[in-house]
Amino acid sequence: MFLEKLLAAARVNHTLLCVGLDPDPELMPEQDVFAFNRAIIDATHDLVCAYKPNLAFYEALGLAGWEALLKTREYIPDHIPVIGDAKRGDIGNTARAYAKALFETFAFDAVTVNPYLGRDSLEPFLSYQDRGVFILCRTSNPGGADFQDLLLTQDRDAPVQRPLYEIVAQRAQEWNVYGNVGLVVGATYPRELKRIRELCPEMPLLVPGIGAQGGELATVVQAGMDAAGERLVLNSSRQVLYAARDGDYAQAARRVALELREEINRFLPARPAERL
Amino acid sequence: MFLEKLLAAARVNHTLLCVGLDPDPELMPEQDVFAFNRAIIDATHDLVCAYKPNLAFYEALGLAGWEALLKTREYIPDHIPVIGDAKRGDIGNTARAYAKALFETFAFDAVTVNPYLGRDSLEPFLSYQDRGVFILCRTSNPGGADFQDLLLTQDRDAPVQRPLYEIVAQRAQEWNVYGNVGLVVGATYPRELKRIRELCPEMPLLVPGIGAQGGELATVVQAGMDAAGERLVLNSSRQVLYAARDGDYAQAARRVALELREEINRFLPARPAERL
Repeated sequence: MFLEKLLAAARVNHTLLCVGLDPDPELMPEQDVFAFNRAIIDATHDLVCAYKPNLAFYEALGLAGWEALLKTREYIPDHIPVIGDAKRGDIGNTARAYAKALFETFAFDAVTVNPYLGRDSLEPFLSYQDRGVFILCRTSNPGGADFQDLLLTQDRDAPVQRPLYEIVAQRAQEWNVYGNVGLVVGATYPRELKRIRELCPEMPLLVPGIGAQGGELATVVQAGMDAAGERLVLNSSRQVLYAARDGDYAQAARRVALELREEINRFLPARPAERL
Repeated sequence: MFLEKLLAAARVNHTLLCVGLDPDPELMPEQDVFAFNRAIIDATHDLVCAYKPNLAFYEALGLAGWEALLKTREYIPDHIPVIGDAKRGDIGNTARAYAKALFETFAFDAVTVNPYLGRDSLEPFLSYQDRGVFILCRTSNPGGADFQDLLLTQDRDAPVQRPLYEIVAQRAQEWNVYGNVGLVVGATYPRELKRIRELCPEMPLLVPGIGAQGGELATVVQAGMDAAGERLVLNSSRQVLYAARDGDYAQAARRVALELREEINRFLPARPAERL
């Protein structure tokens, strides 16, 4: 099960930090994508609860990008879950093709998906019961408000209106029959994060936007963690990957990841002795 | 400009038919994806206004799939627009990476995108002013109703309620500053298609779901065409690609495409003499 693997990795490394493996040729000190990722993984694998490659960066590099992604995925230690950040959403046999590509070809432990096309578009992903499916809920960008914050209702006569992101969270809760659903909530909206945690007390929440996108860490951790201080995956990409632009980049990445882990842990409840 | 290229191809081939190049190994009579696509293109290029490869089917085949997609894209005659059906949606530098991959690496004339993340997520695509951007609006699957049909009360004092897909169409209209925006509307919802055409009288509408997904052609054509009987792209994938499962598959595809084109044209207004 994905959730168990995530909790185990978080406990063994005492961390909620996820590193986003987003290779950007304009920022990388090493132009070989796999060599770059390998150095980052070597330097951070004992500090993270997951890695999250965003597929856009590999797709942008053409065939060489896909090869680098496959090699990167194989290189990540078995006990660290890998979240394929693909934000896919399509219908019927097309959604099945995406699910197959992500869960079989790339063997990701979890993926991100877009809810706009509704339940049947997510079903092919959800049916992989041992994998995680993080549904976009309230995204970290300002434009997220355009539709996600609209106050909507299902019933013309019912006067209760809820923002779309809350309805997505509620439906995700209903669709979580195999215990493999999570939600993506931007660090830039801690009030919304808190509300989503209330609606979904047991779901893992993937929170991009700490670091470069400017989410405030104490608020984010307190709003997003579950009752035990877990089930929260805080992703940082650029702040870690591009901590230094020269030969010592891997060491610099380790230093930043270590700082982020410690900073996050300061805001968590004290850990029970048996987990130390 | 994408729209001009689309209109020109539709006029020269006297057609609103688009063929979806969705190679499915379980259905293909020829297992070499590029050879299969080439045979389909050779058999149908004078009957279509566009081709639409759905990226899921190529992604599912791994590196060989991406190679086949690149070769297919190069093989399509220059005057026929190619719509990369990717349904991407992501933020900031990630959205830029997707736009670069789709518009530069694959040189698609247009792409499909998902609106859930809002305007700034679409901006990197829209900024390619000579390319088309088809925004998902009301999709053809039953689950499309889960969120797209939720109702927004637009004005608390004058309680007009509109479904989310209408709001998406209205925003798309506002965002169409370069004249490069289109919408995706499933053939299975002709009432919604008619409403969207009223809201966006000049936008190209991409309508999947004719044929295999069962949209009724007369209703769909009449609901979706613009005042001149144009700006409508009716996609069929499986019905054309898998018309026969043996050696004559390309001829069978041509026969079905020809029938679909004629069937569609029966419901269009008479063409002005100068276009004949």
